[in-house]
Amino acid sequence: MKSPLLLLALAVTSFSKAREINVADHGIVPGKDVTLPVYLLLDSIKDEAGVTLKFPKGTYDFYPENAYEEFRAVTNHDNSLKRMAFPLFERKNFTLDGGGSTFMFRGRMSPVIVASSEGTTLKNFSIDWKRSFHQEMKIVESNHEEQTFVAKIDREAYPYTVKGGKIMWDHYNFQMEFGNNMVFDPETRSPIFNTRDYKVNGRNIKVQEVGKNRIKVKSPTNKKQPPVGSVLVAYGENPFTRLAQAIHLDQSKDTKLENITVYAGGGMAVIAERCDNVHLNKVSVTSTKERTISTRADATHFLGCKGLIKVENCLFEHMLDDSINVHGAYVRIDEYLGDRKFICASSHPQQWGFVFAEKGDEIAVLSRETVLPHFNATVEDVKWLNEERVIITVSKVPEKIPEGPLSMENLTWYPDLIFRKNITRENRARSVLVTTKGKALLEENYFFSQMHGILIEGDNKSWYESGGVGDITITNNIFENIGFEGGAAYPLLASPLLTPDQRMGEGHYHRSVSFTNNTVKSFNGLLAQAKSVKGLNISGNKMEVSGDYPNHYNYPSIDLHYCDQVSIKNNTAKGFAQPLVIKQQANTTAVTIEGNTGFESK
Amino acid sequence: MKSPLLLLALAVTSFSKAREINVADHGIVPGKDVTLPVYLLLDSIKDEAGVTLKFPKGTYDFYPENAYEEFRAVTNHDNSLKRMAFPLFERKNFTLDGGGSTFMFRGRMSPVIVASSEGTTLKNFSIDWKRSFHQEMKIVESNHEEQTFVAKIDREAYPYTVKGGKIMWDHYNFQMEFGNNMVFDPETRSPIFNTRDYKVNGRNIKVQEVGKNRIKVKSPTNKKQPPVGSVLVAYGENPFTRLAQAIHLDQSKDTKLENITVYAGGGMAVIAERCDNVHLNKVSVTSTKERTISTRADATHFLGCKGLIKVENCLFEHMLDDSINVHGAYVRIDEYLGDRKFICASSHPQQWGFVFAEKGDEIAVLSRETVLPHFNATVEDVKWLNEERVIITVSKVPEKIPEGPLSMENLTWYPDLIFRKNITRENRARSVLVTTKGKALLEENYFFSQMHGILIEGDNKSWYESGGVGDITITNNIFENIGFEGGAAYPLLASPLLTPDQRMGEGHYHRSVSFTNNTVKSFNGLLAQAKSVKGLNISGNKMEVSGDYPNHYNYPSIDLHYCDQVSIKNNTAKGFAQPLVIKQQANTTAVTIEGNTGFESK
Repeated sequence: MKSPLLLLALAVTSFSKAREINVADHGIVPGKDVTLPVYLLLDSIKDEAGVTLKFPKGTYDFYPENAYEEFRAVTNHDNSLKRMAFPLFERKNFTLDGGGSTFMFRGRMSPVIVASSEGTTLKNFSIDWKRSFHQEMKIVESNHEEQTFVAKIDREAYPYTVKGGKIMWDHYNFQMEFGNNMVFDPETRSPIFNTRDYKVNGRNIKVQEVGKNRIKVKSPTNKKQPPVGSVLVAYGENPFTRLAQAIHLDQSKDTKLENITVYAGGGMAVIAERCDNVHLNKVSVTSTKERTISTRADATHFLGCKGLIKVENCLFEHMLDDSINVHGAYVRIDEYLGDRKFICASSHPQQWGFVFAEKGDEIAVLSRETVLPHFNATVEDVKWLNEERVIITVSKVPEKIPEGPLSMENLTWYPDLIFRKNITRENRARSVLVTTKGKALLEENYFFSQMHGILIEGDNKSWYESGGVGDITITNNIFENIGFEGGAAYPLLASPLLTPDQRMGEGHYHRSVSFTNNTVKSFNGLLAQAKSVKGLNISGNKMEVSGDYPNHYNYPSIDLHYCDQVSIKNNTAKGFAQPLVIKQQANTTAVTIEGNTGFESK
Repeated sequence: MKSPLLLLALAVTSFSKAREINVADHGIVPGKDVTLPVYLLLDSIKDEAGVTLKFPKGTYDFYPENAYEEFRAVTNHDNSLKRMAFPLFERKNFTLDGGGSTFMFRGRMSPVIVASSEGTTLKNFSIDWKRSFHQEMKIVESNHEEQTFVAKIDREAYPYTVKGGKIMWDHYNFQMEFGNNMVFDPETRSPIFNTRDYKVNGRNIKVQEVGKNRIKVKSPTNKKQPPVGSVLVAYGENPFTRLAQAIHLDQSKDTKLENITVYAGGGMAVIAERCDNVHLNKVSVTSTKERTISTRADATHFLGCKGLIKVENCLFEHMLDDSINVHGAYVRIDEYLGDRKFICASSHPQQWGFVFAEKGDEIAVLSRETVLPHFNATVEDVKWLNEERVIITVSKVPEKIPEGPLSMENLTWYPDLIFRKNITRENRARSVLVTTKGKALLEENYFFSQMHGILIEGDNKSWYESGGVGDITITNNIFENIGFEGGAAYPLLASPLLTPDQRMGEGHYHRSVSFTNNTVKSFNGLLAQAKSVKGLNISGNKMEVSGDYPNHYNYPSIDLHYCDQVSIKNNTAKGFAQPLVIKQQANTTAVTIEGNTGFESK
């Protein structure tokens, strides 16, 4: 017979499997700093599986003073002590249901961190900051001869201090320099056409106050002053601008995000690393009505994940970076210690602390010159030395370790990707970056982006984002006005990014890239550029002319370098002033071009 | 019968109790970076008690690249990721025997960290850095009218880059601004007399190169330019100058340091926090022959320790701060949560992360105005929120929580102190700071310090160093030329440091201060100043005049404010141009003055 205590324990366990907690029962109500009671409540149920934390609809305030803190590495951000509102560590089947609430933050806080958890659901809330991480200025005077401009600033939204010719932006618990910046068009709520022509050198300016809400800026430049009526957005200097992502998913399994809006963030809206299965549905990243900008960096970003990344029905707009980026990491091999042990180092400081590999993972050792693999092996042991360096012991090495600089990539942690029915628009940078060896499908999306549309890169040069793609389909999407940054920005660019020391190897870097049945509304007639791709299908795409930006035809519409097995069929181009050019370098082989209308081969 | 395996296990255990490991057997030899093999060896024996790690005599090089790293809080320093050479965590009876070796470091590294360990002995080694954390300049021209000086710099020892009128000091893996500075006298190897008159405003200077090893500095000031022949020492800006202490003792018991020399340090030589029994014997902190300066900060410093701190036969010289400081911490009470729970906050950012209290500790809740106690209680629970803040639950509170700003101090963690037969000299700042409620004995030491000799302070204002003393004896020491910074610097100063908001309360802050039979060689005739002391005995001291610095008599030799039960007997003053003055404020009570020679009461 079971003891009463055991029965009670069983009852509690079984009850806890579906327990819903109304936070109002724990003194968590709108209109005060709820950071501490939320943490204490979370802490009190930390070992309980299956809990739903339910917020009655309202605006809940979070402040950093009493927030729980740990030193955290967050990839593509800067590592630091992070103060958190929802530290969800080692949870099982935990649901955070905001009930339509707004979680309002101050200062450098990390709203939600899901780490080493399984079956987490985040839903029905929005994240915002009282004071956003960027600052906006409306240009009211602009004098190219004098090299000055005058800007009007909503001082409540973007408080500042001018002293000694320098402006410092006042934030909740820190100050920020003028820093990086970009000019936006308030009508399109996007970067202004050719925005790089207006960039302000934040380190070189002299600022004076000319009225309560106005500054006059002496801005020496060989570029243009920001035009009257435009919105100049300044967002500080590295490494101080990516310290407060909105949602961080770390080494977790089966995580769902539903019906969430992120209005601001000192970093990305959603950054996931080494996660297995992540599903975003109806996640919006957008600015508030009063602001032009949403997050400081990408809407979503996935490093070293596996399983399936599914992103559907989302709206990503007004970010200061891409809407999604899915990739692995090239770590540098610094030394072979013998005995199958390598000292590996994160190649980019913003990947320091990323858990690149664990026991049992399949890795490849590559040439850092060609970015092509020498051999594969299984990880037997991982010993971290510091944020940057790790000793990785592998199952086997060739008799002679290959010469020349080497990198390592993790073959186990590449996900499949479904990116469907999403809208990306009015942001700085690209729409989508994807370099996963998994199967990727991008369909029925709308893309309106300033740089490239879909960038399939893989670089062992600057961000060290790994992954030659193996099977990617981009179909039935609408691309509109891609490339209004100016320059050769394509709806599809597939090409590894190489340094001068790196060279195309014997093999092809990317494989099986299919770009079909998309509608491309274009002012520059560009469709696709590909380098080092084997198996490229560009077919059934409809190009229409767009009059939204000045038309020009400076680059080939389809531009092929060192590709093999290329099919370019049944694409149409309507309304352009001249036929769009298909150009192939001599090192491109097995190209079929047929049935295209409005194109010519050169 | 025991199994062979169990017997083997027992044999290993018993053998391990006194195992000595010669590091040379593990590839650890002079002439290469031994950081990684030392770490791997330490890691392989991390669970073994009683190990001695023996280094054959030599110079061993340590570099940060492959060093083990953790985020560490180090009190009186700045918290950060620390890269370590000897991370001695959770060890039992571990001995590091350097065999007379030099451990030579590069960059911001933490040479030795002893944490959560018992019975650790560190002995027979010296710690140095190839590139010290400060920089020295020999002044070769000095022009007060032009407000310029020219300095010659040993560019190999102190490499630098001049650009845009600014000098940046180049270090192994970072750069440092000109920053704080002080002028030293190369003959005395001490701060120059009245050094504050020569301070350079590092933020205001314009630097130009005038030859391979020379800089000309435009230094606008209403002070004097550093004189020709002096050594200007620059040591950077906070918070970047206290990131690399030499030896950190943290939450450890029974730690011994013997026959150790520290030649440099980006912080203190020895910093101990929450340690029980620490014994230093024959520890030297000194500069190399080529340098004027040893460590950036104190030689030794003890926060929140208990048991006995014993420091004997040590030499502390050429530091940029005090030779020893023993104290507790006043933490701020920010909020009473009810239910006997207080939110407490570290008052000084360089105490963030210090483990102020644990379950079972006796604490006092004090008025922050009078710094006198309201009530005592026992700690029942401690919950850390972040580096700064902690929720402390105590056993009892009065029916009504006292009004006004409150502080808390930990009564359990005050040590006894024996400081005997040590030499302190030629450093910036004081010789000794001590505010422990334990029994303190300072005898047979030699003190030659620029500011006060023995400072018994207790401040709830700037560094928040707690502890009214309860029983301190300072006897048979030699004090020489105390106070050559200029100003009223005394061999003995006992006085709490109060803010304008704070006031002397009803009680006396310090008790039982005995200063007897000391020899004081003095150019300024100063002996002791005391405020808020009950039980002060200044007797049998011999004052002799010193001609090493300009004689002056600007202040009372003995100066009493709000003291009670004071005995000033049988002190002698010889060779001074006038009688030395004993002065007491009207609020001083029960004073006996008798048998003094060369003194007069006013």
